[in-house]
Amino acid sequence: MTDSALRPSGRAADQLRPVSIVRGFTRHAEGSVLVSFGDTRVLCTASVEERGPAWKKDGGWVTAEYGMLPRATHDRSRREAAQGKQSGRTQEIQRLIGRSLRACVDLNALAGLTITIDCDVLQADGGTRTAAITGGYVALVDALNAMKKSGKLKKNPLFGQIAAVSVGIHNGKPVLDLDYSEDSACECDMNVVMNEAGQFIEVQGTAEGHAFRREELDQLLDLAGKGIGELIAAQNAALAG
Amino acid sequence: MTDSALRPSGRAADQLRPVSIVRGFTRHAEGSVLVSFGDTRVLCTASVEERGPAWKKDGGWVTAEYGMLPRATHDRSRREAAQGKQSGRTQEIQRLIGRSLRACVDLNALAGLTITIDCDVLQADGGTRTAAITGGYVALVDALNAMKKSGKLKKNPLFGQIAAVSVGIHNGKPVLDLDYSEDSACECDMNVVMNEAGQFIEVQGTAEGHAFRREELDQLLDLAGKGIGELIAAQNAALAG
Amino acid sequence: MTDSALRPSGRAADQLRPVSIVRGFTRHAEGSVLVSFGDTRVLCTASVEERGPAWKKDGGWVTAEYGMLPRATHDRSRREAAQGKQSGRTQEIQRLIGRSLRACVDLNALAGLTITIDCDVLQADGGTRTAAITGGYVALVDALNAMKKSGKLKKNPLFGQIAAVSVGIHNGKPVLDLDYSEDSACECDMNVVMNEAGQFIEVQGTAEGHAFRREELDQLLDLAGKGIGELIAAQNAALAG
Amino acid sequence: MTDSALRPSGRAADQLRPVSIVRGFTRHAEGSVLVSFGDTRVLCTASVEERGPAWKKDGGWVTAEYGMLPRATHDRSRREAAQGKQSGRTQEIQRLIGRSLRACVDLNALAGLTITIDCDVLQADGGTRTAAITGGYVALVDALNAMKKSGKLKKNPLFGQIAAVSVGIHNGKPVLDLDYSEDSACECDMNVVMNEAGQFIEVQGTAEGHAFRREELDQLLDLAGKGIGELIAAQNAALAG
Amino acid sequence: MTDSALRPSGRAADQLRPVSIVRGFTRHAEGSVLVSFGDTRVLCTASVEERGPAWKKDGGWVTAEYGMLPRATHDRSRREAAQGKQSGRTQEIQRLIGRSLRACVDLNALAGLTITIDCDVLQADGGTRTAAITGGYVALVDALNAMKKSGKLKKNPLFGQIAAVSVGIHNGKPVLDLDYSEDSACECDMNVVMNEAGQFIEVQGTAEGHAFRREELDQLLDLAGKGIGELIAAQNAALAG
Amino acid sequence: MTDSALRPSGRAADQLRPVSIVRGFTRHAEGSVLVSFGDTRVLCTASVEERGPAWKKDGGWVTAEYGMLPRATHDRSRREAAQGKQSGRTQEIQRLIGRSLRACVDLNALAGLTITIDCDVLQADGGTRTAAITGGYVALVDALNAMKKSGKLKKNPLFGQIAAVSVGIHNGKPVLDLDYSEDSACECDMNVVMNEAGQFIEVQGTAEGHAFRREELDQLLDLAGKGIGELIAAQNAALAG
Repeated sequence: MTDSALRPSGRAADQLRPVSIVRGFTRHAEGSVLVSFGDTRVLCTASVEERGPAWKKDGGWVTAEYGMLPRATHDRSRREAAQGKQSGRTQEIQRLIGRSLRACVDLNALAGLTITIDCDVLQADGGTRTAAITGGYVALVDALNAMKKSGKLKKNPLFGQIAAVSVGIHNGKPVLDLDYSEDSACECDMNVVMNEAGQFIEVQGTAEGHAFRREELDQLLDLAGKGIGELIAAQNAALAG
Repeated sequence: MTDSALRPSGRAADQLRPVSIVRGFTRHAEGSVLVSFGDTRVLCTASVEERGPAWKKDGGWVTAEYGMLPRATHDRSRREAAQGKQSGRTQEIQRLIGRSLRACVDLNALAGLTITIDCDVLQADGGTRTAAITGGYVALVDALNAMKKSGKLKKNPLFGQIAAVSVGIHNGKPVLDLDYSEDSACECDMNVVMNEAGQFIEVQGTAEGHAFRREELDQLLDLAGKGIGELIAAQNAALAG
Repeated sequence: MTDSALRPSGRAADQLRPVSIVRGFTRHAEGSVLVSFGDTRVLCTASVEERGPAWKKDGGWVTAEYGMLPRATHDRSRREAAQGKQSGRTQEIQRLIGRSLRACVDLNALAGLTITIDCDVLQADGGTRTAAITGGYVALVDALNAMKKSGKLKKNPLFGQIAAVSVGIHNGKPVLDLDYSEDSACECDMNVVMNEAGQFIEVQGTAEGHAFRREELDQLLDLAGKGIGELIAAQNAALAG
Repeated sequence: MTDSALRPSGRAADQLRPVSIVRGFTRHAEGSVLVSFGDTRVLCTASVEERGPAWKKDGGWVTAEYGMLPRATHDRSRREAAQGKQSGRTQEIQRLIGRSLRACVDLNALAGLTITIDCDVLQADGGTRTAAITGGYVALVDALNAMKKSGKLKKNPLFGQIAAVSVGIHNGKPVLDLDYSEDSACECDMNVVMNEAGQFIEVQGTAEGHAFRREELDQLLDLAGKGIGELIAAQNAALAG
Repeated sequence: MTDSALRPSGRAADQLRPVSIVRGFTRHAEGSVLVSFGDTRVLCTASVEERGPAWKKDGGWVTAEYGMLPRATHDRSRREAAQGKQSGRTQEIQRLIGRSLRACVDLNALAGLTITIDCDVLQADGGTRTAAITGGYVALVDALNAMKKSGKLKKNPLFGQIAAVSVGIHNGKPVLDLDYSEDSACECDMNVVMNEAGQFIEVQGTAEGHAFRREELDQLLDLAGKGIGELIAAQNAALAG
Repeated sequence: MTDSALRPSGRAADQLRPVSIVRGFTRHAEGSVLVSFGDTRVLCTASVEERGPAWKKDGGWVTAEYGMLPRATHDRSRREAAQGKQSGRTQEIQRLIGRSLRACVDLNALAGLTITIDCDVLQADGGTRTAAITGGYVALVDALNAMKKSGKLKKNPLFGQIAAVSVGIHNGKPVLDLDYSEDSACECDMNVVMNEAGQFIEVQGTAEGHAFRREELDQLLDLAGKGIGELIAAQNAALAG
């Protein structure tokens, strides 16, 4: 059985979906990026507010919020604003995005500022959180550059570059960047956030029912490293554009 | 003073902003339309669920939900899902959209079905509710056609066509289709929903501080009629496309 | 068919229900009015608090809250406080009342003060929001007079008088001041708020299923004007009493 | 020092405020009573719904809800529906009213029915919960009689009569039926619910700071018994009227 | 029939369950007490915060919060944090605990401090609120002593000692300290809070269906006095330990 | 520098804190375990309800809820029930516990049953979620055994054994089972859930600011494997006891 036979999309095991990163997608936000991983499309905006976080004496803050339009998915999901609360899944994802992006920023250099990265899924086909982190990084860079240009930032608070991808075991074989049809049928999946030096920021692997062996874990991390290298290149191409 | 001098955009008093109606903007929903009135962009999806409304014995239902991405606006607004409730403004708007769309549908012919029109504002520049109604109608038509094609609908429940536009008095003069800079400075504004026969579905006029005279009201309604005629033509062009 | 045959109450098409405006209905509020439009009875109190609105640097504020006692209606409705939220209908109505009353007040002259008009429906028979606006105006005047007497207001912030009434098409004919039996069966209905000069503050017309023509709209506005003239006379009589 | 010197109102220590019980105050509810204990005025409605309680297999249910109009009090209190929840005080009071009224009803005889007693305070001057219980009883009787008349009840579920009053120690002396000026300054207060045989349904006594001795408790219970006897007579007079 | 025949536990009518008061049960709180009344076990912690209450200009505050672990009871109850609100019962109980403990403290001497008594039921077998008050008092004393030792308190704010017990009529006979099997079948029950001088702080007696006579009330209060005397001795023994 | 110098507790880098697993800690739950990892103490109860999950046609369900008593921590945290919602952290943890425990259970064999594992932290000193998973497993086994004994389960749904531990890099060196003083100062930390075969169920590693290299990740996973082997032995000893 060839690789392409294994994946519904015909992709090779170590092949990303087509990636697109469109900057300036909307006009009000300091950074506004539409990121696509195949059919997954997430609008990431970076909003700068001139106030530090209330619960913290010094330094600034970077935080994230995540949402999914009700019909981003195959079946309509209920609107969280109408439900009156964010689901546990939403909170878990937005906490992950926020932690990941803070890992490449010197918060002291942001003193007096709060940057909120809003990640809203317009269309979902698996991997929304990894697309959000990858696109959110670009929106954050655009917002930081805007602040440098306007003189609100003395020094560059950015000290690294991050991107994220999912990996998992599908049909018994490790694969990169799962789409929805793979994700819903996979035996275990892992979201990995890495920096441009190939170091880990976040590793979140989950098995329900089928536990994974150490060598499988190693293979998954190798795949993630390859994918993230390509995503970092895509970010750089977009930022150079 | 010429017309164009009166409006920040240079438009004539009776001139709509450029209108764009893109069908099939996302792939999961039965109807998915990105509508633009100038810089105002609203994603309208129509989702069909095979259940009648719980509170109603017979017939189906058409309802609407409205949301604004946090950074659709000039300053970031707080995410309603995180706030734990929808604002009064949001509820008022989604009730208006739902009532308006129900006014062109035979609910009995929809028996056993609920159609939800989700209107999510990606970018706001005034007139989001009228854009939502105008685009929502097209999404609704696409969803009804999809159901007819799949045999879930025996007869066509649609018995009219509707569109909506705002009008207001700006710098002392009635103008059509207010953008944000006009809206925030206008003396009174009115949202008008009409059908293809030029009859009224909804009229909502508001004055804060400056009341409007009967002849001003008449002029505003004339302007609205003109604009809605053009919007109905734009809907038909999109549906024919 | 005569007029009286058309209306369950036997009223003429342009006839208001008996109006009663009782001032000083309760003793704590600066203004306290029990207003009746026929069997619709609303208790309107105006409460003055010596604080400006938090979100506004200058000037004072006038706002409104609306509630319905659970058994004000034919069937008991659920208590909103127990539900944990106000319905969309409630919010829409209280926003309308607040906007309407602000339209006759100079907010700058109210600097440092917030006036809340609470409108609580003791018994409902159609037209609760228009009764609330009409009675709320009288409560507001009483509160402003109390503040002038106590020296808290230097100049009179009131620059107009407002009242409200509903109109609609019932059995194919325009009628004034719909009661519940008419309201629940009418083809379209409109709430109109006007000032003492016959100018419009708010016009909110709605058709579900049956759209209304321009000449019908004109007739409805004529009826509203006549009714509001009589309501303004009733307010003046009550205030003179 | 004479009794009348002790009480701001000039009442004797064992004297109730003027009591008024008006039946049929609003028209929709099966029972509707406006009860006044002096300046305290509470609208009590009894609403019958033809459904048993969901959480109970057999028999019917009697429950109560309590609310205070925002400006029933000297200073405006925030509307609980707008706050999004009922306060602990509100819940405590409505639980007390419900338990008290269930103590005189055979719930098995109410099978298939739920009666809700809504007690809404129009004006508060101390003793709102005891007025609510006393007036709620009359509304309940009216609703039960209406059901008997309409044939929905085979046998009378009522097996007793109840009323309630507050007592407390004010200026070192036990007094009956505290008004607000006494209540806010009293050393301990007690709400007592009794039946027509002088037996206790509820006794809730509270001391903050100043504990009360057994002989004081005995005096308070004697006063309560006297007052409740008079309230039961007032209920009977109203029901006979 | 002997006493022991009357009670499922074989206890005499005036016999408490075995009482245990363990200080220092957890290590972070200024006071931490595990109190057991038979199989009822409540963890009471006293937490000192160096802030006065926001709503009160002078003096400090003592407040209480109450919770029940979901499986403290025979059947699992739903977690209030997951439900999104505290039940009426929970609020009623925590208000009672707070009022009772404030009755033995000079709040002025606590200026600038707030003490929160958290009472969490690990295992429930009737009488959780009375155990909470009795154990909460000991936790409060430990916290006050810790503050005196650290110099945060100049003078001792404690001016009395309190404890609480339940009494009720079971099988027609007054009994002390009801366990769950008695509580769920009793004809009336009463929670009594008293101080070391035998004076009353709170008396809360409830009858559902079966009203209680004055002589029964007297017997119940006598039983409560006896039990509270023993509980106060147990508190003193624990504090001396 | 020796290992013991590196850790505030003096433990070796690969040394667990003393582990204690007490079964039958409370009496109502089908499984009730007090687990201690050093000063971290979590009460884990397993509650069986005879209903399948509403959202799932076949099979049973295992879920978890997590809570922290307000004063389990050094400073008092606000009670989530009083706040009206569970924090994102709480939801993230209870989702992790539930997923982990479902990974060793055949849900089909649980048809018609729901088991809820409540994990309530009585005292916190780091590692509450890993203690909860380790103790929750034992409570789950006790509940499954109780159901087998009572005949409610035909076959054993358990097909594996799981435990969890945290690892992290502290003072530049990988260490096992972080206590609070290490956790709050560590450069990265990872929670690992494994089964008795040394396979992974969950891996959640986080770096804020300091990313970790692949060889560090490998060392952390080795440490986790060693610790989980010892925890599985401790579970077995407790279950044999």
